[in-house]
Amino acid sequence: MTFEQWMRSVLDRVEGALEQYLPAESIEPARLHEAMRYAVLGGGKRVRPLLCHAAGELTGAKAECLDAASAALEMIHVYSLVHDDMPCMDDDDLRRGKPTVHVQYDEATALLVGDALQSQAFVALTSDVLEPAKQAALVRELALASGSIGMAGGQAIDLASVGHTLTRPQLETMHRLKTGALLRAAVRMGALTGDTPDASALQALDAYSAAVGLAFQVVDDILDVTTDSATLGKTAGKDAKDGKPTYVSIIGLDASRALAAQLRSDAHAALAPFGARAQRLAELADLVVNRVS
Amino acid sequence: MTFEQWMRSVLDRVEGALEQYLPAESIEPARLHEAMRYAVLGGGKRVRPLLCHAAGELTGAKAECLDAASAALEMIHVYSLVHDDMPCMDDDDLRRGKPTVHVQYDEATALLVGDALQSQAFVALTSDVLEPAKQAALVRELALASGSIGMAGGQAIDLASVGHTLTRPQLETMHRLKTGALLRAAVRMGALTGDTPDASALQALDAYSAAVGLAFQVVDDILDVTTDSATLGKTAGKDAKDGKPTYVSIIGLDASRALAAQLRSDAHAALAPFGARAQRLAELADLVVNRVS
Repeated sequence: MTFEQWMRSVLDRVEGALEQYLPAESIEPARLHEAMRYAVLGGGKRVRPLLCHAAGELTGAKAECLDAASAALEMIHVYSLVHDDMPCMDDDDLRRGKPTVHVQYDEATALLVGDALQSQAFVALTSDVLEPAKQAALVRELALASGSIGMAGGQAIDLASVGHTLTRPQLETMHRLKTGALLRAAVRMGALTGDTPDASALQALDAYSAAVGLAFQVVDDILDVTTDSATLGKTAGKDAKDGKPTYVSIIGLDASRALAAQLRSDAHAALAPFGARAQRLAELADLVVNRVS
Repeated sequence: MTFEQWMRSVLDRVEGALEQYLPAESIEPARLHEAMRYAVLGGGKRVRPLLCHAAGELTGAKAECLDAASAALEMIHVYSLVHDDMPCMDDDDLRRGKPTVHVQYDEATALLVGDALQSQAFVALTSDVLEPAKQAALVRELALASGSIGMAGGQAIDLASVGHTLTRPQLETMHRLKTGALLRAAVRMGALTGDTPDASALQALDAYSAAVGLAFQVVDDILDVTTDSATLGKTAGKDAKDGKPTYVSIIGLDASRALAAQLRSDAHAALAPFGARAQRLAELADLVVNRVS
């Protein structure tokens, strides 16, 4: 199977899982469920589900178990986007090529869509396709990665940084939490869904995730200044306009490109212990660095 | 032990558990952690933790396990208050006798405090004081009760109801989700923390919770028109001002008082199968109906 075929098959599965794990629009409150589905379905690169599935292949995880974990990861990711786009945060009106939830619906609905998607992620993770001990382990990974010492904490640091000059280590700390924690959880949850990996395997996967997570952000910063809004599906040039520190603003465009290439090598190197079984993870590192949107 | 002594001892335990399960202010991002603790600690009636502990006594649950479940329940409750108080929702500036989080800090911080408290609830529930199968069962109860077919869904119906005339059944549906779902989860989670109760016991507990949950709301509506803000610790008269349907606006003050008394009887009746072991739950039903704030 080529990488493109593998990716297409995972994306199809994940879209089906999201469809299944989200409440139907016919269930009351219908408008809230419609808005949750508007936010989640039919868009997005699904990077976290792809990482989850790729890591699960290392430990023989069942695809339907990885689907539940992937749906939960994507719901958490989308909830964070919906809340980040709200007027009191980044105040953005375009996301995944569509009006953001608070523009399409209203602010209160956007707040509730995010809140309910977070709950729904934990509903998906406790589906009986996973055995109870796995459910508990995956819930803990996801809750820690989402909360104040993970994604939400990174968002808080991001907000506090607006208009300030950050050092490169400070910028890295912010991204390690804001984007890195959930990407790391995607890889760990994929691996933990199968036969429990040993500590050294988890350590190698964490090193891979750290490199990929940082590369993801560096490339985001590059694309923000080199690509138009239509291609990105979100507002381009927003970070500079908002006075947010980025890799491009701190180390420049050329050094940012060199850093992304270096991080890709680091990610590949971290996968060495797994040999050919880690092919999909290696290809995903390439995808993250080479993406154009 | 008198009810007051029992209550004091549970409240002390729960405060300690919240202190323990919330990240310390010394951990980065410190301002977010400070705001989370500001929202949660040192206030509130802790009705859900009390119900959880009382129900746990029926099934021989360990107090330290009930503490974890109680902390999770209270974090979910407080997150909902923090988000509900935001300008795009109820826009309130007083809660538990203190400025609301978005007033004391800012809107973006209030949004993140709520988001991070929800995650932290699931971190608390997956603490290793509980065995993994219990963790998974409790996470599912709490996630379903919090999300779009529970608390967040009730909030969506509440928002849609502003300025509209609701029938009494519509009002009941709203409260069954908005407040009732989490109160019911508090009772079920307490019971599930101990020796797994049989279906008929859970059914009796659900009937108790339905009566107590509705009574809680009816009394809230009565207090909103009969009590001042200083006593309530939140803005009195707000529902009438916001054009929100309440029991008092639909059936009047006297009929609301009679309904609260009837619901208390219903709650007591539901506990009959448990005999004297359900004493604390019966006393809590009295507390909910007789409270003055």
